Amino acid sequence: MQAAAFSDSIPSIADLTDRTLSSALQQLLDQKTKPLGALGRLENVAHQIGCILGTTVPQLQQGHALIFAGDHGLARQGVSAYPSDVTWQMVANMLSGGAAISVLTRQHGLALKLVDCGVAKPLPAHPDLVDAKVAQGTADASQQAAMTEAQMHAAIAAGRQAVRSVPGNAILLGEMGIGNTSCAALILARLSQRRIEECAGAGTGVAGQALQHKRQVLQAVLARHAHAQAPLEVLASMGGLEIAGMVGATLQAALERRVIVVDGFVTSAAVMLAAKLQPHVLQRCVFSHQSHEQAHRLMLQDMGVHALLQMDMRLGEGSGAALAWPLLESACRILREMASFESAQVSGQSAATS
Amino acid sequence: MQAAAFSDSIPSIADLTDRTLSSALQQLLDQKTKPLGALGRLENVAHQIGCILGTTVPQLQQGHALIFAGDHGLARQGVSAYPSDVTWQMVANMLSGGAAISVLTRQHGLALKLVDCGVAKPLPAHPDLVDAKVAQGTADASQQAAMTEAQMHAAIAAGRQAVRSVPGNAILLGEMGIGNTSCAALILARLSQRRIEECAGAGTGVAGQALQHKRQVLQAVLARHAHAQAPLEVLASMGGLEIAGMVGATLQAALERRVIVVDGFVTSAAVMLAAKLQPHVLQRCVFSHQSHEQAHRLMLQDMGVHALLQMDMRLGEGSGAALAWPLLESACRILREMASFESAQVSGQSAATS
Repeated sequence: MQAAAFSDSIPSIADLTDRTLSSALQQLLDQKTKPLGALGRLENVAHQIGCILGTTVPQLQQGHALIFAGDHGLARQGVSAYPSDVTWQMVANMLSGGAAISVLTRQHGLALKLVDCGVAKPLPAHPDLVDAKVAQGTADASQQAAMTEAQMHAAIAAGRQAVRSVPGNAILLGEMGIGNTSCAALILARLSQRRIEECAGAGTGVAGQALQHKRQVLQAVLARHAHAQAPLEVLASMGGLEIAGMVGATLQAALERRVIVVDGFVTSAAVMLAAKLQPHVLQRCVFSHQSHEQAHRLMLQDMGVHALLQMDMRLGEGSGAALAWPLLESACRILREMASFESAQVSGQSAATS
Repeated sequence: MQAAAFSDSIPSIADLTDRTLSSALQQLLDQKTKPLGALGRLENVAHQIGCILGTTVPQLQQGHALIFAGDHGLARQGVSAYPSDVTWQMVANMLSGGAAISVLTRQHGLALKLVDCGVAKPLPAHPDLVDAKVAQGTADASQQAAMTEAQMHAAIAAGRQAVRSVPGNAILLGEMGIGNTSCAALILARLSQRRIEECAGAGTGVAGQALQHKRQVLQAVLARHAHAQAPLEVLASMGGLEIAGMVGATLQAALERRVIVVDGFVTSAAVMLAAKLQPHVLQRCVFSHQSHEQAHRLMLQDMGVHALLQMDMRLGEGSGAALAWPLLESACRILREMASFESAQVSGQSAATS
């Protein structure tokens, strides 16, 4: 790999740690009219969002769901329960308002943008469709690298541009691409040095012999790309164009200190890659849910993070991120609107203070 | 106990089972543009709400958070980290908009009503305060029955009336009462025949020796009221006025086929009592979250139910129910708004259908 030519595509992400702000946020939370820590993980999210946005009175503004789409040559090996055509069909469904992510973004007043990084078929123009097609899908990773280095960097750049082009301080990341749970499994297997049996599960619905076949295919892909160990090598050889797009979006959103709401297994794989490149991106990421796909639990564990919801969902397309959105809003409002013991003239905790 | 005189206070709750509607709901969910079951527990909630409201296109209307408040004579035995005065202080805080439940109901456009079933001190009149005070707190259950039978039935009736007096098809139940995690622990211990060590935890913040003391007190309460085995006997001897209010509210909301969104440990204890009286109430209950209070997990398990959120919260006051509210809205919208494979012209699952 000749990384030098593309080194500009990976921005440097600074450490957000600010002990003064962090203490101020914790003190504010502790003074709210509730027992210490009684709002549990909601308090952690409030604290994190305050740190990301650099304020003790955080307010999420103009949240944008960016859904990255791409097709996969590897799907020809029968690793998914669905035909590749479903990628463009579902993108069209999202744009026409009928997909789960359409429903959930509408519910919460979130903007929805589809970023076509590599859908095989042409998509008709639409105001919410960003045409960033790098190729008509990846190559079959069981035969060759999924992407050329140039294609990968073009997709990363497209993801960065997609973030730059929308206003607001929060991005919800999601994806659509038949075959891409296989990519996520491959990325986890390689980055965490885990066995493929741990990393590859049912995806959207393969089981029994089909799952055995999927694992054999993925094992062969890992063997073919045994040399690929660095994050960008893993991405180019075994990833997807939409995953590269999400790597770029994660980096750009982190650079701009936006709150990044991460969806499920495939989106987390992109974040895992981005975090291998720039570890501080994780400071900006709120993991919305833990997927039914068992490997997602391992992936979150390997990143040392914890997801907000455990709802046994396994849809992707940003649906978990959008479902969790109002909880992030609640966290911010707790900081902004809840009374303190002093302001509400409520007695403090006798046992804890005596 | 002379139950006959009060038998009218416990309505009969019918079995909602409707196989035709249930199948229709499942078929609709299965035809939505997603892999079978891919929205996980959100699909279960959608199905349940459809069954409660008796429709395949459920819509939550005019959700009301009813927060029942009362004081506890048992608090004099030092079972809580807070003084009893905090009950009325927090009710005042809720009414003036500064409590967590105030913030969360405002966020979601929910109405908030405080039902005073037995706060020790007088509360100034407020449009959102329902004066249903039965007594100025319960008696000390370590010395005598917490309530007389007449007081208990008056509080149950107040809970039923509180539901009757508000419009809409969904009730969020919550509570405020210093000392009432002790009541919940006692109710669980007696109804489930569990040891008090399993049932009594930190509450709002007792630990170490204070927790040992709390358990000793509660063990003595259980011994004093060894005869109390039937649900209403348990409630009168070891419960609380606000818990009796929630029993009444649960029964009335169930009778009217409203969606009942259940908060944490104390609220669940009221629902557990109501379900012992009328098991079909559980068909109408959506359990919003599993509390950090460990005994709540056991209580949910003993009722055979599962909570939506696990956020390590332990605040009560309906905060978990209000936090989960948008997820219930999402579930309804999935049924109402998501496209089907046919309407969106998306190809179905090849593996599952072949």
